[in-house]
Amino acid sequence: MRALQLTDPGVIEIRDVPVPEIGPSDLLIRVGAAGICHSDLHLLHFPVKMREEPLTIGHEIAGTIEAVGSEVDGRQVGERGIVYLCWSCGVCRECISGNENVCLAAGRTAMPPCPGLGPDGGMAEYVRIPARSFVPIGDLDFLQAAPMADAALTSYHAIRGAKEHLRPGSTAVVIGVGGLGHVAVQILRALSATRIVAVDLGQDQLDLAKRCGADVTLESGPDTARQILELTGGRGAEAVFDFVGVDPTAQMAVESVAPNGAYRMVGLGGGVPGVTADPAGGPGWPWGASVRKSYGGTRSDLVDSIALAQSGRLTVEVDRFDLADARAAFDRLEAGKIRGRAVLVP
Amino acid sequence: MRALQLTDPGVIEIRDVPVPEIGPSDLLIRVGAAGICHSDLHLLHFPVKMREEPLTIGHEIAGTIEAVGSEVDGRQVGERGIVYLCWSCGVCRECISGNENVCLAAGRTAMPPCPGLGPDGGMAEYVRIPARSFVPIGDLDFLQAAPMADAALTSYHAIRGAKEHLRPGSTAVVIGVGGLGHVAVQILRALSATRIVAVDLGQDQLDLAKRCGADVTLESGPDTARQILELTGGRGAEAVFDFVGVDPTAQMAVESVAPNGAYRMVGLGGGVPGVTADPAGGPGWPWGASVRKSYGGTRSDLVDSIALAQSGRLTVEVDRFDLADARAAFDRLEAGKIRGRAVLVP
Amino acid sequence: MRALQLTDPGVIEIRDVPVPEIGPSDLLIRVGAAGICHSDLHLLHFPVKMREEPLTIGHEIAGTIEAVGSEVDGRQVGERGIVYLCWSCGVCRECISGNENVCLAAGRTAMPPCPGLGPDGGMAEYVRIPARSFVPIGDLDFLQAAPMADAALTSYHAIRGAKEHLRPGSTAVVIGVGGLGHVAVQILRALSATRIVAVDLGQDQLDLAKRCGADVTLESGPDTARQILELTGGRGAEAVFDFVGVDPTAQMAVESVAPNGAYRMVGLGGGVPGVTADPAGGPGWPWGASVRKSYGGTRSDLVDSIALAQSGRLTVEVDRFDLADARAAFDRLEAGKIRGRAVLVP
Amino acid sequence: MRALQLTDPGVIEIRDVPVPEIGPSDLLIRVGAAGICHSDLHLLHFPVKMREEPLTIGHEIAGTIEAVGSEVDGRQVGERGIVYLCWSCGVCRECISGNENVCLAAGRTAMPPCPGLGPDGGMAEYVRIPARSFVPIGDLDFLQAAPMADAALTSYHAIRGAKEHLRPGSTAVVIGVGGLGHVAVQILRALSATRIVAVDLGQDQLDLAKRCGADVTLESGPDTARQILELTGGRGAEAVFDFVGVDPTAQMAVESVAPNGAYRMVGLGGGVPGVTADPAGGPGWPWGASVRKSYGGTRSDLVDSIALAQSGRLTVEVDRFDLADARAAFDRLEAGKIRGRAVLVP
Repeated sequence: MRALQLTDPGVIEIRDVPVPEIGPSDLLIRVGAAGICHSDLHLLHFPVKMREEPLTIGHEIAGTIEAVGSEVDGRQVGERGIVYLCWSCGVCRECISGNENVCLAAGRTAMPPCPGLGPDGGMAEYVRIPARSFVPIGDLDFLQAAPMADAALTSYHAIRGAKEHLRPGSTAVVIGVGGLGHVAVQILRALSATRIVAVDLGQDQLDLAKRCGADVTLESGPDTARQILELTGGRGAEAVFDFVGVDPTAQMAVESVAPNGAYRMVGLGGGVPGVTADPAGGPGWPWGASVRKSYGGTRSDLVDSIALAQSGRLTVEVDRFDLADARAAFDRLEAGKIRGRAVLVP
Repeated sequence: MRALQLTDPGVIEIRDVPVPEIGPSDLLIRVGAAGICHSDLHLLHFPVKMREEPLTIGHEIAGTIEAVGSEVDGRQVGERGIVYLCWSCGVCRECISGNENVCLAAGRTAMPPCPGLGPDGGMAEYVRIPARSFVPIGDLDFLQAAPMADAALTSYHAIRGAKEHLRPGSTAVVIGVGGLGHVAVQILRALSATRIVAVDLGQDQLDLAKRCGADVTLESGPDTARQILELTGGRGAEAVFDFVGVDPTAQMAVESVAPNGAYRMVGLGGGVPGVTADPAGGPGWPWGASVRKSYGGTRSDLVDSIALAQSGRLTVEVDRFDLADARAAFDRLEAGKIRGRAVLVP
Repeated sequence: MRALQLTDPGVIEIRDVPVPEIGPSDLLIRVGAAGICHSDLHLLHFPVKMREEPLTIGHEIAGTIEAVGSEVDGRQVGERGIVYLCWSCGVCRECISGNENVCLAAGRTAMPPCPGLGPDGGMAEYVRIPARSFVPIGDLDFLQAAPMADAALTSYHAIRGAKEHLRPGSTAVVIGVGGLGHVAVQILRALSATRIVAVDLGQDQLDLAKRCGADVTLESGPDTARQILELTGGRGAEAVFDFVGVDPTAQMAVESVAPNGAYRMVGLGGGVPGVTADPAGGPGWPWGASVRKSYGGTRSDLVDSIALAQSGRLTVEVDRFDLADARAAFDRLEAGKIRGRAVLVP
Repeated sequence: MRALQLTDPGVIEIRDVPVPEIGPSDLLIRVGAAGICHSDLHLLHFPVKMREEPLTIGHEIAGTIEAVGSEVDGRQVGERGIVYLCWSCGVCRECISGNENVCLAAGRTAMPPCPGLGPDGGMAEYVRIPARSFVPIGDLDFLQAAPMADAALTSYHAIRGAKEHLRPGSTAVVIGVGGLGHVAVQILRALSATRIVAVDLGQDQLDLAKRCGADVTLESGPDTARQILELTGGRGAEAVFDFVGVDPTAQMAVESVAPNGAYRMVGLGGGVPGVTADPAGGPGWPWGASVRKSYGGTRSDLVDSIALAQSGRLTVEVDRFDLADARAAFDRLEAGKIRGRAVLVP
C-alpha cells in the first residue's frame, strides 16, 4: 500500500509498504481521510530521527473497519469511524476516570502514545489501531470526520474545561482562526451564548470567523488587548483561548482576561505569559484568573465533537488533497495558505 | 478611643481619636479582637502615604454590635460577629452572584475597598462598618474569630476553588505554614481525604503542621520538588497551595504539580512561575495544570470558615497582644517569630 | 393612580389608589409593563382573602426609577430596570451565597415575600420596591423585559441546574409551550447543542416551539413517552422540563427520562410522578435519574436572562393589553388563548 | 473447587464444580474473600430460576490473579485486587465517559451484567473475570477489600453525587447503619465537615455509627423527622441518604430534607416518597430538593473507595465466615444479626 513516511528529519515521501498486520485486540482501518495538523509540520522540522525505521505520519484518521482482531467484541467489518489519538494504558486511575489524555503511564510531562508519532499513523491506505481507539461516526463524511480527531477534540476540550466562565453576558476571545480556531468559534457558538471575539492577522481568517459565528472580529496588533478591554467596559474577557501561543498573543491574553477568567494556552508557540505572584499582577494579570496549558481531549470529548458535527452545528472548512499530493499540501500549510484544515485522501 | 494608626509611611502609633459616627446603613462595632496580617506589614513598608489623614489599620475584626444605623434591618445591639473585608458595591453582576471579592466596581486589577486600607480599620476600640459586612459568629471566641476574616477566608477560598482536585488518593502540598498555611492544613483535613504534605523552613512550623493534620512534612529546600515527585510516584501533587510566593516556591510548585493539577498562588512575594506555551512545558509544567492568583474570598466562604471553627475542626494558633503592645507584635511578626496568628485585643 | 387590585377572593378591579410612599432603602418605580403569570390566575381562584385590604397584584414588573430612597446608593432617577421577585432577607446563609430563592427566613416550604402576593405588586402606574430588588435592563423594551422577571427567570433557573445533562448528542424535552415553555426552548437553544423536543397539545404551540428553535415537536398524548424513547434509541431524554405538572405529564416524564437524567417539575399542577425506591423503578424510573421541584431563580439567573434578551437570543412572544383591559387579558389566559405571554401596560 | 451455588429458587448449597476456564481477555482470580450483600438475600427470595444451570453467587470479590488471558496487557499472576461489579460494554458513550454503571447496553432500567447474578460470581475458590474489571488494592487486607466492591462503591457514589450539598455547617442524615450505612458515615466524615446524623432502630447500630464518626444518633421512629428539623432550626438536612428505602424512611426523608437538598434512595425496599408537583410540596417536600435513585458506582468511585481504605479513613466492620458456613452467615444476615458486613473466606 502507499504511505506517507518520514524517512529522515525533514524528509517525507510516499512509499510502498506492506499492509499492517493486526493483533487479536486490533482493528485494521481502510483510511478514508487523514487531516494534516500543525504538529505534523513541527515533526518535519524536528532535527533528530523519531525512530530508526521510516514512520508513517498522520493522527487525524477517519475510515472503515477492514478487519477485526480475534478478541475484539462489538466491532464489525464495514463500520465507519475515527481514531481517538491517545493510545493510553486504559487501566490507570486517570484512564478509568475518563481522562486518558493525562494517562499516568505517559509520565508527568509527556503525552500518551499517538499514531503517527511513535506507532505508524494514518496517511496511508491502511492503518492498524487498537480496537479501543475506534469511535463510530455513523454517516458523517470522512473529510468532515477526520479533523474531529484533533482539531475538534482539542478545541472542544479546552472550551469544555472553561464552560463555567461562558455565562450569557460574558465575552470569549479566540486568538488565531486556523484549523483549530475556526472550529473553536463554532463550538463556542453551539455551547453557549457568550459574545465571541475572534482575533487574527488576516482578513480571510476574520471573514471565516464571522461565518463560523463570531460576533466581533479584530485584526491582531499591539492594540488588540486595549480593544477587548474597551468592548468589555474595562473588565476583560471571561475566557481567552489562544491557538497561537507566541509572546505577543500570550501578552494579549494576560492583558485582556477578566478577573476570575480563564486563559487557555492551546497553541504552543513557546510564548511566555509573564504571570507573577504579585499583588499588582505583573503585566496586568487580574485576581482569580487562571492559566492552563491544554492538551488533546478525552474520548468523551471526541464523542461530543462528533455529535456536534452530526447535528450540523460544526462544519470544518476543508481543503482536500490526494495523498499523492501530500507534499504540496504541507507546503501550503507552511505558507499559511490553508484556510481551515487540509485533509488527505488516499 | 485608642486606635493604632499609620500616620506616615512606616510609622504606626496608638493615638486617641473620636469614636466613629455611623450612617443609617452602618453598624458601630466594639472591637473584641483584631488579627495582624502580613499585608499589614507590607503597609508599613509602603513608601507613599495611603491617605492624607492618619489611617486606623486592621482588617481582621471581631466584635460586638454597639450601635445600629437607623435603616439597618435584622441586626441588634449586642450581637457578636466578624467583618467581611470586601466592602464591595453589592449590586454589580459579580456581587449579586456572590463573588464580591471580584466586584466590578473595583476595576480589573484592584481590590474592593477594605477596612484598614482605605476606610478606617479595626485595630481600635470601635470601628464603623457597613451593616452588610457583618457576619454573626454565635459563641465563637473573639481571638479565634478575628483570624477567620482573612487567614481562614483566603485559605478557604483557594482550597474550595480546587476542591475537585482533592479526591481520595490525591496529594495536596501546602507551602508555608504561617498564619494562613496552618489554617489551610486544617481546612484540607476537614474537607477532604487528600494526603497533606506541608513544606516550611522551620521545624516549629512543621511540628505545627503535623498537629494541624499534615500527613507528611518536608523541610523546604532545593530538593523539595524532587521529594514530592518521589512521594507521588513521579506524578506530582494534584494541588499545590503556595502561601509564600517567591521565586523558589514558585519553581517548587511548577516542578511538583501533577498533570491536570491546581497550583494556587496565595502568598504574593513576587515569584515568577516561568510558565510557557511550550510542549516541553518550560520548567517542567505538565499538561492541563493550571495556575491561579487567588484573592480573599466570598461572604459564603466566610460563613463556611466560621462553621468549621464552630464545629471544632479549625483552631487558629493565636499569639495574643494588648493593643498597646501592637508595635512589639508587628516586630515579632516581621522577625518570623509568630507561630500562627498574632491578634490584638483593645 | 390606577391599580389592578384583588379585593375579594376571585374579584379583581381597576381602582384608584394613592401613589405608594417609599422608605429610605426603597425605590419608586413608574411601571412600564407588567406580565401576567399563571400564578396570578391561581390567585384569582384562591378561596380565602390574601390580606384584609385590597392587594395590587403583578410580579413581572419592568419600569423606570421615579424616586430614590435617601439611603440608597448607586441608583438614580430615570434608570430602566426590572424587579427581582424574591424579596428575601439578604443576610442569611443562602442569600449571601446568592440563593435568595431559598432564603432561610422563608422557612422550609414557603416562598420568600413576592410583590403582588404579600406586598403590593406592579399592575399599577407605580410600585414601591426595595432598592436591592432592582436589576438594570439598559435599552431593553419594557414589553420584552417584564417577562424576564418570572417566565425567563424560572425557566433559566431550571435549565441552568440541569446544564451538565445537556451535552452534545443529548435530548431535552420541554413539556408545555406556553409563557415559560417557549422561553425555555430558546434558552436551551442558546446555552447548548442538545436536541430539543417540544411537547404540547396544540399545533399553534408546536409551531411556536419550532420558531423558538425546537428540533422536534410532538403532539402530547398517551403515546408521547414511547415516541421519545424511539427518538432516543430506547434510552430516554437526558433532561425533561415539565411546565405543566399534572398526572399525565408527570407520568410522561418518568417514562421518558434517561438513566442519570434530570426531570424538573416547574409547572405545579399537582401531578404525582409515582417514583419509588424499587429496583424495578416503579413506573419505569431509571437508575440515577433525579426529580426536582424548581422554584423561581437567583438574582444571577435574572441577570443572565436579561443578557440573553439583550443579545437577541431570547425574544418573548408578547400579547399586549392596556391595564384597563386586564380583565379581558385574564380571561383569554384562562381560556388558553394567549400564545406566549400576556403583558399589561399602564 | 468448592462454590456456593443457587440451584433452585431459595436453595443455596456448596457444590464441587470445575475451576473456570478463561478466555484471552480474562483473568482467573483465586478468591481471598467474598462479601455477602443484602441483594444476595433478595436473590434467595426470588421466585423464579435465574438461569437453567446452578449459579455461583457473590459480587463482592477480592483475590489474587492466578492466571492471565493471552491478550491481557499490564496484569500479572500474583497481583492482588478486587472486581468491579459492572461488567459493562466498555465502548458506549456512557462507558467511555466513565459512567459504566449506566452502560447503554444495559438498556433503560436494567443493570449491566454483574458477577453472581448472570455470570458466575465469587463465593467460590476461583472466579473468571474480564480483565478490565480488575482493580488493584496493593496490600489491603482481603476481608477489608471485598466490601469495597459494593458496600463502599455504592455508598461512595451516592455521596459523591451529593458532595456540593455537604458544605461546612450543613447536616447529612444516614438512615440505616448496616453494611452500607456504617461505611457511608465514614465516607462522609472523610470527605466533608458536614454534621452527620445517623438514624437506626438498634442501639448497637447507633453505637457503631458513633465509632464511625457520626455527630448525632437518633433512634428511628415516627418522631425522627421532627427531631432532625429541630436540630437544623426547622430547615432540614442538606442531604439525606436512605439505605433502607421503605415507606417510613421515605416519608422521613421527604419531611426532613432541606430546600435545595439532596435525598438519595440507595436502599430499595419499595418505599414511595410521595413527591408531587404541588406548590405546597405534598407531604412537605421543599423547593429545589431532589430525589435520586442511586445504583452502584463508577470504576473511578471504586478506586477512590480503595484509596480511603488504604489511608486508614475507612474500615469495614467485618464478620468473617468460612465459605463452608455460608448458610449460617446468610441466616444471621436475614435475622439482622450482622453488624457491618459478613464476609466469606473460601
